[in-house]
Amino acid sequence: MYFPRLDELCKQKKSLLCIGLDIDMERIPPFLLTELDPLFHFNREIVEATQDCAVAYKLNIAFYESLGIPGWDLLERTLAIMPANVMVIADAKRGDIGNSSRKYAETFFKTYRFDAITVNPYMGFDALQPFFEYEDRGVYVLGLTSNSGALDFQYLKVEDDVPLYLKVAEKVMEWNFVYGNLGLVVGGTHANEVQEIRSMAPQLPFLVPGIGAQGGNLEFAVKYATSEEGRGALFNASRSIIYASTGHDFAEVAHERARHLKEQINLILSINKNFGFLDEN
Amino acid sequence: MYFPRLDELCKQKKSLLCIGLDIDMERIPPFLLTELDPLFHFNREIVEATQDCAVAYKLNIAFYESLGIPGWDLLERTLAIMPANVMVIADAKRGDIGNSSRKYAETFFKTYRFDAITVNPYMGFDALQPFFEYEDRGVYVLGLTSNSGALDFQYLKVEDDVPLYLKVAEKVMEWNFVYGNLGLVVGGTHANEVQEIRSMAPQLPFLVPGIGAQGGNLEFAVKYATSEEGRGALFNASRSIIYASTGHDFAEVAHERARHLKEQINLILSINKNFGFLDEN
Repeated sequence: MYFPRLDELCKQKKSLLCIGLDIDMERIPPFLLTELDPLFHFNREIVEATQDCAVAYKLNIAFYESLGIPGWDLLERTLAIMPANVMVIADAKRGDIGNSSRKYAETFFKTYRFDAITVNPYMGFDALQPFFEYEDRGVYVLGLTSNSGALDFQYLKVEDDVPLYLKVAEKVMEWNFVYGNLGLVVGGTHANEVQEIRSMAPQLPFLVPGIGAQGGNLEFAVKYATSEEGRGALFNASRSIIYASTGHDFAEVAHERARHLKEQINLILSINKNFGFLDEN
Repeated sequence: MYFPRLDELCKQKKSLLCIGLDIDMERIPPFLLTELDPLFHFNREIVEATQDCAVAYKLNIAFYESLGIPGWDLLERTLAIMPANVMVIADAKRGDIGNSSRKYAETFFKTYRFDAITVNPYMGFDALQPFFEYEDRGVYVLGLTSNSGALDFQYLKVEDDVPLYLKVAEKVMEWNFVYGNLGLVVGGTHANEVQEIRSMAPQLPFLVPGIGAQGGNLEFAVKYATSEEGRGALFNASRSIIYASTGHDFAEVAHERARHLKEQINLILSINKNFGFLDEN
């Protein structure tokens, strides 16, 4: 079961940090370009250096897919070097009619054995159910996303004057009651809304992107996205950690950033929540 | 420019038919399984047999992706055998924050040179703009999808008592006014709604799935989805054509089905529209 295992890892590592491996030839340290296999080298170094701080790595599929077959090969080899004590999330945002979603679920849960995935709710239940059916994996449904385009549709008021993103959160809770392996993507760039969704869904696991390069306020995001117990949310940073240095010290600097972010999160928890990690042991 | 080229092909071939190549090892004729490369063999035979009737082929990416690297290799080789006088659509339903969507657009418009793509509107404008910027390609945004899950969110009433799918259609028109290369996916399973969207967007190009195995009513779909001139819509059938026979005659039967469907569409146009293909020449 994904979420209980994730929670166990969070306790072990005293961390709610997820690191996004958004690999990009134009952003990795230039000295790596003379390596035979620069992107794999980069991923391996980053994972080795940061695994004590990260409970999960999120692979943004867009960055791998855009490279064609070498990208899928890189993805496969990156999965192969993942340590046993981390979760690996496919940030894929897939969703299609049932018949096709079944194939997408196969891609990420069978062909590649990810622990969890992100999916898009627009097409509704039968587009998501094939993912939910993998009961040992986790499925994060997009609720409120961290980008500016979230305003276009997600904020539209629907029935009972409730915004669409809250309606999606409601449905996700309802489906989770049946399947038990769902979570919600809630962008860390919208502090008030995070609080609103958390009040409505006190126990639903959240995946919170947008706290790094996208500029979300960490204090509010952590305070509002976690449950009363200071758990139930995973905070993702990608570029702000992995591209913090483009020198030979990139892995070391990434580790420094990851450790710092993990500790900042824990500090905010210890101030605001009943049971932060700092209070334990 | 995708849409003018598509319209030209429709006129040349007197057809509004798109065929979906949803390849599936479990559904292709069993005798092909003894071939060295059954799925490629299948695609090649289907395309060769049906290209006189189809103006476009739609590759549902889920089916290729789920096979891993051999699937992307199959996709690449399938693209390579496409005749010059057809359009090729990536049915990918992608969409992510700008930074990532740029990579998805690269995947389907650069790494693989598709003529058009389907994308998901949930994340709003900045998730779609990177696709729109490829001005010579077409971008079909999901409006109202053909599956039952469409009821979950797409039918929710938003501002001015308008359902979400219509709000999406409005935005797509607005964006199309700037970019000029957008279209809308409108499921053929919802005849009344197709009519409603067409009245609101008299000139917007539609991609209409759901008229084959999904059971949409062809007459209403064609009557309502096409523009006054009996154009501006592409009707997709996948399984009902390509898996019509599992015998040695599969390509021949697929051609028969494709020809029949193309003619049915034209007949409906000739009865209901000012200028169907049958009226020309």
